[in-house]
Amino acid sequence: MLTSMMPQEGRRFVLNSKGRAVPEILDGVEMIPYRSHYGIEPVVKREVGRVTRWRRPGDSKCLSSIDEALNRCGLSDGMTISFHHHLRNGDRVLNMVMDRIRSRGIKGLRLFPSALFPVHEPLIDAIRDGTITSIEGSLNGPIGRFVSQGNLESPVVLRSHSGRVRALSQGEVKIDVAFLGASCCDPLGNANGVNGPSAFGPMGFGYADALFAESTVIITDYLVPFPCLPISIPGTNVDWIVKVDSIGDPAGILSGTLQITDREDHLKIVRSTMEIMDRIGLFKDGFTFQAGAGGISLAITKYISDLFRERGLVADYASGGTTKYLVRMLRDGSLKTLLTGQAFDIEAVRSLIDDRNHVEVTVDQYANIHTGATITEPEQVAFLGATEVDLDFNVNVNTHSDGYLLHGIGGHQDVAWGSGLTFITVPLERKGNPIIREKVTTLSTPGELIDVIVTERGFAVNTEHARKEVRERNQEILSSCEKGGLPIFNIEELRKMALREGGKDVEARTGDQMIGLIKYIDGTVLDKVNIVLDGDQEDVPSSFLTPSSSGTR
Amino acid sequence: MLTSMMPQEGRRFVLNSKGRAVPEILDGVEMIPYRSHYGIEPVVKREVGRVTRWRRPGDSKCLSSIDEALNRCGLSDGMTISFHHHLRNGDRVLNMVMDRIRSRGIKGLRLFPSALFPVHEPLIDAIRDGTITSIEGSLNGPIGRFVSQGNLESPVVLRSHSGRVRALSQGEVKIDVAFLGASCCDPLGNANGVNGPSAFGPMGFGYADALFAESTVIITDYLVPFPCLPISIPGTNVDWIVKVDSIGDPAGILSGTLQITDREDHLKIVRSTMEIMDRIGLFKDGFTFQAGAGGISLAITKYISDLFRERGLVADYASGGTTKYLVRMLRDGSLKTLLTGQAFDIEAVRSLIDDRNHVEVTVDQYANIHTGATITEPEQVAFLGATEVDLDFNVNVNTHSDGYLLHGIGGHQDVAWGSGLTFITVPLERKGNPIIREKVTTLSTPGELIDVIVTERGFAVNTEHARKEVRERNQEILSSCEKGGLPIFNIEELRKMALREGGKDVEARTGDQMIGLIKYIDGTVLDKVNIVLDGDQEDVPSSFLTPSSSGTR
Repeated sequence: MLTSMMPQEGRRFVLNSKGRAVPEILDGVEMIPYRSHYGIEPVVKREVGRVTRWRRPGDSKCLSSIDEALNRCGLSDGMTISFHHHLRNGDRVLNMVMDRIRSRGIKGLRLFPSALFPVHEPLIDAIRDGTITSIEGSLNGPIGRFVSQGNLESPVVLRSHSGRVRALSQGEVKIDVAFLGASCCDPLGNANGVNGPSAFGPMGFGYADALFAESTVIITDYLVPFPCLPISIPGTNVDWIVKVDSIGDPAGILSGTLQITDREDHLKIVRSTMEIMDRIGLFKDGFTFQAGAGGISLAITKYISDLFRERGLVADYASGGTTKYLVRMLRDGSLKTLLTGQAFDIEAVRSLIDDRNHVEVTVDQYANIHTGATITEPEQVAFLGATEVDLDFNVNVNTHSDGYLLHGIGGHQDVAWGSGLTFITVPLERKGNPIIREKVTTLSTPGELIDVIVTERGFAVNTEHARKEVRERNQEILSSCEKGGLPIFNIEELRKMALREGGKDVEARTGDQMIGLIKYIDGTVLDKVNIVLDGDQEDVPSSFLTPSSSGTR
Repeated sequence: MLTSMMPQEGRRFVLNSKGRAVPEILDGVEMIPYRSHYGIEPVVKREVGRVTRWRRPGDSKCLSSIDEALNRCGLSDGMTISFHHHLRNGDRVLNMVMDRIRSRGIKGLRLFPSALFPVHEPLIDAIRDGTITSIEGSLNGPIGRFVSQGNLESPVVLRSHSGRVRALSQGEVKIDVAFLGASCCDPLGNANGVNGPSAFGPMGFGYADALFAESTVIITDYLVPFPCLPISIPGTNVDWIVKVDSIGDPAGILSGTLQITDREDHLKIVRSTMEIMDRIGLFKDGFTFQAGAGGISLAITKYISDLFRERGLVADYASGGTTKYLVRMLRDGSLKTLLTGQAFDIEAVRSLIDDRNHVEVTVDQYANIHTGATITEPEQVAFLGATEVDLDFNVNVNTHSDGYLLHGIGGHQDVAWGSGLTFITVPLERKGNPIIREKVTTLSTPGELIDVIVTERGFAVNTEHARKEVRERNQEILSSCEKGGLPIFNIEELRKMALREGGKDVEARTGDQMIGLIKYIDGTVLDKVNIVLDGDQEDVPSSFLTPSSSGTR
């Protein structure tokens, strides 16, 4: 597999099994090149969690300010700090904490967020003044553009949602201080995101941070007497609590990815995906699926909801990225159980309180490859987006074709790895750029995990490049759809149609400097991302996410 | 503190801060003598958990038999195995697994149960034939008697419920294979105890076992499609699943400790405890308390329930050891929230499903001293039993006065450490044996943590020997009760009354051989227990527990 070595800017690179050049070493740590979509076995045998700060009954965890928390946690140069993204573009916690950190002149921090949003644009100043010199986590929109231009000292490391938790559990990343926004907290540190004026939903993205960080600080605007129920983050993993005026604006969890599409070309993709699923007999009692964000995924969820109600069918469970469409299914009886890792609207937040068959899950439960119990596994089907796909069904969700690193991996790899049948829903072109490529600019999810690519003009089924255990099944899907007269093409034909629709491939003008690394869910390295030399080849969309870049962000 | 060394049967002993001789070393491991009721800081900085067995999607966790599980887990001589006790005297899992282990001739195992019950009497055969050579966990009734006579190779180590979990989290005990009975489980290993034909309630006593064991096996008689909800044990910590015909008889969770007392002397204790609480103004909205098993504790819970309903008061929360009396309070609105670590009757099991403000908690959350978030801490009051108390308010719950080790610590230390005001409810004598002693035969819970001792003839308040931060408060309690004309005595007076009521102290006829060790919640050693030389000084009660030996077993 490891066929070649290529020294470059002082680094040694090696080709992984997908033929992508990846660094042998990063920041002194040996990188394992990607081997196979199945993943590698855990590199450690035991997880190393934390012992919470020792206190006697009566000692208080409540501090008067973020500054006091920084003191108590001993935050200093070079440490790693983490945040969850449940408040999405309404989050105030990250900026609030960074403001106090910068005012103290602490430098050289590694930022380990579960995701960043446009609201976090002030981070650019923290990068400029050396407060932040390293980021491991998704870079959306403005910060991604800034980093793509070579403005961050260390290459960013991108992991999927579950890859991030796996990294924590295996000591690949060690958080010094986790700052976790909670909409409700009691004096013992038991916290949730479903009660209080800033309720934002589940807190699963902060669970592992609290468990594995050296110190955990809950930032809340709603401190209640014990017990705060439900307990999403147990106080047993919390050292300090800071009450602030406001942790954010829950309205901000509704962001650009959460508008259902009304574009006719996109709706063609939605209808085509529905037709395929119907044709191959998925729509019956017991159906299980993964829902997500992005205009097309949202529309599919809505269409499934409508169809199940009309036909009087009952799905067993769905996992979300939860929106009102899933809540509606749950409430009208066409869905038995709803498992939620992220809430994408206020209806989802309320339902977590009101509906007993709607359950919050941690990211570990959702998709950590090394737990042996991912809830993605029993899912029959999932719908994901892409910025590009290629002839081997490989998917890029991270960079645009011009090379800019503008998106995180989200749950893309997680869901593709676990669920039975993975759809990629993409338009043939965006702004004249063909989306079906010879080779993806950046490899985010291996084509082995992708089963069907659906475009507005037709779809392709992965029979050759899919993982071997589903090739026969995919061949049957192909035959069934052919018999049904559905618009099937092979991937090369889709590529030609994309070229006709779009025109010439946009090519990235990148330099030698590595600015980012894409890790697979098992911790191996799928690809690297290089610096973009020319700043204005393509307009960056005003929304930080393309409408269907990833279904489970 | 460590004033003397006393070599004995090849061991070196040292006096701890309570003047009890404890071994310096046990099985090659250095023992830390008990220092203070506050506890010591954690001896480790990080918890070491497990990485679940690696599997690919589609690989099954379900095995055909216990024998196959023993094979897959590689169970062999000298390993440590664990069980939870939620099915109490109705449990079939432990005997079923031990039967298969014995049939394979595996020897020298260490047994680490959360508690043993009379139903586990067949263990005596496993001790006799060398299958089990060491036990760390409570020994109730017949097995305790057998061990007290010197029949186990290694001294047993007794820990409180939370001390057991602390030991796991700090690597003090490492489980090789945890066998956890579940009344419901899905193919990913997500399990609970509230669904299915053998529903027994929460599974909090198995949570830490699943998290820290090298291998975890769920034994269930009710395998359901994913998802099994609620998830009490996450499948992320489960390696294997074995379906059996029956895990036990849930009727067996109702055992001898769960009969409400109707003895007039006991009811005097109950009424007196109620009077004290009323006199000092505890009975008002916002009341919080710990409930437990034992006839007297049960009666107090019932009396509180009656009183709150009559007066239209609303308690904030109770933590149980949950029975129908607490469920009734919850349902009639006189209790806002109920937290349950153990279900003591079928009403408690059903309520966990039906009542959303009734929540299952893990033992870690309940009382692990090193988590900084024990739910015992905000409790205003708790009621515990004793086999003996002494002039320093020290409590014995483990041995009878004749020296026989017949009871575990249960939650005794846990609750006394955390809750605000700790009552010990005891009769002055049992079968002619005075219960108030000069010195307790065995030190289970330090007198510093005890506030009031209530007997059928009167009560004593701990003003001198209590922890310093509550002495003033206890003095106020004393004054208030005196003003109210309640029957207050000092502890020496109670001792004299006990002697008058009971007669002569039963004295233990013990030899030099150490057969047991009593650990404090922080892992330090409180006391040792020696072999009993004469087998029939006192009748062992037909019930394996004295009516009020511990409130939170």
